[in-house]
Amino acid sequence: MPFLCLPLVFKIQTSAGGPLLWFFHLSLTLPLSHCCRILFLSLLFSLLLFFFRERRTNSFEKFGGMAGDCGKWVVMVTAQTPMNMSVIKYWGKRDETLILPVNDSISITLDPDHLCTTTTVAVSPTFDRDRMWLNGKEISLSGGRYQNCLREIRSRATDVEDDENGIKIAEKDWEKLHLHIASYNNFPTAAGLASSAAGFACLVFALAKLMNLKEDRSKLSTIARQGSGSACRSLHGGFVKWIMGKDEDGKDSLAVQLADEEHWDDLVIIIAVVSSRQKETSSSTGMRETVETSLLLKHRAKEVVPKRIPQMEEAIKNRDFASFAQLTCAESNQFHAVCLDTSPPIFYMNDTSRRIISIVENWNRYEGTPQVAYTFDAGPNAVLFARNRKTAILLLQRLLFYFPPDSFFGLNSYIVGDKSILKDAGIEGIKDVEGLPPPPEMKDSIPSQKYMGDVSYFICTRPGRGPVLLSDKTQALLNPQTGLPK
Amino acid sequence: MPFLCLPLVFKIQTSAGGPLLWFFHLSLTLPLSHCCRILFLSLLFSLLLFFFRERRTNSFEKFGGMAGDCGKWVVMVTAQTPMNMSVIKYWGKRDETLILPVNDSISITLDPDHLCTTTTVAVSPTFDRDRMWLNGKEISLSGGRYQNCLREIRSRATDVEDDENGIKIAEKDWEKLHLHIASYNNFPTAAGLASSAAGFACLVFALAKLMNLKEDRSKLSTIARQGSGSACRSLHGGFVKWIMGKDEDGKDSLAVQLADEEHWDDLVIIIAVVSSRQKETSSSTGMRETVETSLLLKHRAKEVVPKRIPQMEEAIKNRDFASFAQLTCAESNQFHAVCLDTSPPIFYMNDTSRRIISIVENWNRYEGTPQVAYTFDAGPNAVLFARNRKTAILLLQRLLFYFPPDSFFGLNSYIVGDKSILKDAGIEGIKDVEGLPPPPEMKDSIPSQKYMGDVSYFICTRPGRGPVLLSDKTQALLNPQTGLPK
Repeated sequence: MPFLCLPLVFKIQTSAGGPLLWFFHLSLTLPLSHCCRILFLSLLFSLLLFFFRERRTNSFEKFGGMAGDCGKWVVMVTAQTPMNMSVIKYWGKRDETLILPVNDSISITLDPDHLCTTTTVAVSPTFDRDRMWLNGKEISLSGGRYQNCLREIRSRATDVEDDENGIKIAEKDWEKLHLHIASYNNFPTAAGLASSAAGFACLVFALAKLMNLKEDRSKLSTIARQGSGSACRSLHGGFVKWIMGKDEDGKDSLAVQLADEEHWDDLVIIIAVVSSRQKETSSSTGMRETVETSLLLKHRAKEVVPKRIPQMEEAIKNRDFASFAQLTCAESNQFHAVCLDTSPPIFYMNDTSRRIISIVENWNRYEGTPQVAYTFDAGPNAVLFARNRKTAILLLQRLLFYFPPDSFFGLNSYIVGDKSILKDAGIEGIKDVEGLPPPPEMKDSIPSQKYMGDVSYFICTRPGRGPVLLSDKTQALLNPQTGLPK
Repeated sequence: MPFLCLPLVFKIQTSAGGPLLWFFHLSLTLPLSHCCRILFLSLLFSLLLFFFRERRTNSFEKFGGMAGDCGKWVVMVTAQTPMNMSVIKYWGKRDETLILPVNDSISITLDPDHLCTTTTVAVSPTFDRDRMWLNGKEISLSGGRYQNCLREIRSRATDVEDDENGIKIAEKDWEKLHLHIASYNNFPTAAGLASSAAGFACLVFALAKLMNLKEDRSKLSTIARQGSGSACRSLHGGFVKWIMGKDEDGKDSLAVQLADEEHWDDLVIIIAVVSSRQKETSSSTGMRETVETSLLLKHRAKEVVPKRIPQMEEAIKNRDFASFAQLTCAESNQFHAVCLDTSPPIFYMNDTSRRIISIVENWNRYEGTPQVAYTFDAGPNAVLFARNRKTAILLLQRLLFYFPPDSFFGLNSYIVGDKSILKDAGIEGIKDVEGLPPPPEMKDSIPSQKYMGDVSYFICTRPGRGPVLLSDKTQALLNPQTGLPK
């Protein structure tokens, strides 16, 4: 019998019961006196009692699991969630904790192929606390925003049956189970592209799947909102409105889809990641200071935005690029205006941002009708919307004319995302960039000044889909056995 | 007799009668036949008749003058008028022609020793049209602004008696006499410091003296206002309010003195002339576009400024630097905010302007109470108000630390105006600048970045007096004989 135990012992040696079985095995096989054997067995039962109590506090016993593998399982879900770029801006909260905004906002979801967050969430009775890793580095979950999201999701969790692995988790057990979360952005953090929107949306979406929440995406957006306001808009693809809501508890402050990404698929988006040496004000701090000190913000929130929201909805509905561009640019500028009206003033745009605005404004004026719209968030990066692919090609040529790549690094890492626009623009190498003629609208500035080094790189993308689950298990960021980052 | 004529002829050869006297002289002295002499004299009288008619149309005969020197006189006045720097901003007109603003504004007049316009105005019956020279170069007076000022002043002109030269000009004659105007700024035009305020104020002040206007300085300011809005504030020294007025004809839109320059003589003003490669929007065009497109301007003009005006008056009255600084900075920032809220957006500040703001804001925060206030007009130059001389020394040390002079050009042309602050700061040469320690408030940016070349030079100055007449005739910019630029 002792020999029969061995394979079993090896199989489950990592579980809590492993050492106890070894002990039992030894007590039977070692050539000991009866007295010793009794002493040995007493010790064994004391230890068993101890482990039994330990398992009670860890709630291990409450869960069904595979026979012979009790409490060792890890259940995981991996999701991918897009970034979004607002065209009617969110700036200013009326409630700092619930993250309730002072006005509605509208955004476009960006193609997750180029800009997204991937998050794997895992639950296991072996986890002794909630833990999170962001881009491979463990971060604290003690902040109020994470805690609010986790609390809201746990309170909505339902029974989960994992038929494949034969695991059942009852609704009431979620309060006691711990989570591991690993999150990864497919774009450099140094880009200064706000990643918290996609991040919190992905966290909430993935956890909602893991914990079998019954809420739809708009309801989930009220949870994501409590992590980062603009995250609520990343729960949908295409064109999204965050309705500010009226309820004090924030239940009606949620994101709805205005149109999916197919609705206006002519649009091409080019993001100029602008080099910056300035330390920027975080958007949370910035908007709090604006609410406290700007005398223009209230007027914007009460009088200006409520008029622009239906105009923007109409422009999107009709794919009316001229109206869309006019509103988008005016919104971006007004957002930065209220930042400047803050005490002390907040500057997110720099001289390069202004040069890009000037290039776009000159071109639009020259053409007589808007070709490109620009918007800037809480940083110097420009997000440019071209009315169609043909315009995007002309835009990219202009951008490369004024902001040529460093010949040492070349084009490949300078234009990322959808590189096919570059090819269509007839640009295959540095030589082609050097051969670009000055745009016709710049007739009054000869020779045209160039600004090599002022832009780090460009991302070519388009409107994209909302969050999705990744069923391919190789894409999970956590090890399915240990629940730790791969 | 012919020989007696000669000195007279030479004396007045530049006058209109000169050639005629030559003719008369020749007709009597040349050895001609009686027939020829009669022909000669007939021709002479025909010419006399012609000149008489010419003089009628030029009104020459209407003026008294020295015996034997009829119509050859030039009467001149030279005045010096300061620049002013607004602390409650003027941006936006409700009437483009009369130049009536959408809100009151308040300014500080700068010491004319460092920044002023000198203007000589001259009248002479020999002038055949109104002419003007600005910084030595003739410019057109056909623009509406000049025409409005000249018309308004002429309509208020009164009798002038120049006892010294025995010249009398009757009120009704001013309409027919022509003027020569020469104007000169004691600071480089390239500085981008708005010179039109001092320029129009000086033009109006000098002409008012020349034409013996009875209006006081505030009444004169309504005329200067029609040349350039902010010019009205340069009619007074010290602390000045431009009351926007209500009348449709603009009669009550005028400047009044809140306090003279002695009232708060602790203040020290340092202007950073910032290097700029950007072509800037003229303030006239800029404010028109803001009025037409900004949704925030109206709120600013109707709600914000009316509250700030009495606060600023109170701060000035009580020499309350903390309130003065808070309001001045907030006003500058809000003015640039409404510029940014314009379509297309207007940017006057650049990265250097923003760095200066950041240096001041950090220092003020570090000290816990404002040491320095900043304001920016329609350009990137910073105008900094230090609460007293001691603070000004610390400010100059900070400015030189971050923006050191190019060692090739040295300090002498880098700090202009009141150089005594430099001396008090213990800085006598480049070596002293290089030895400046980083300011204590910049503990988080080691090593501190420096920005040589981003500032062209600094002007040290203070609040100053209003317009004055210059009695020293050597300071006149026009030749007293010819009425042309010296």
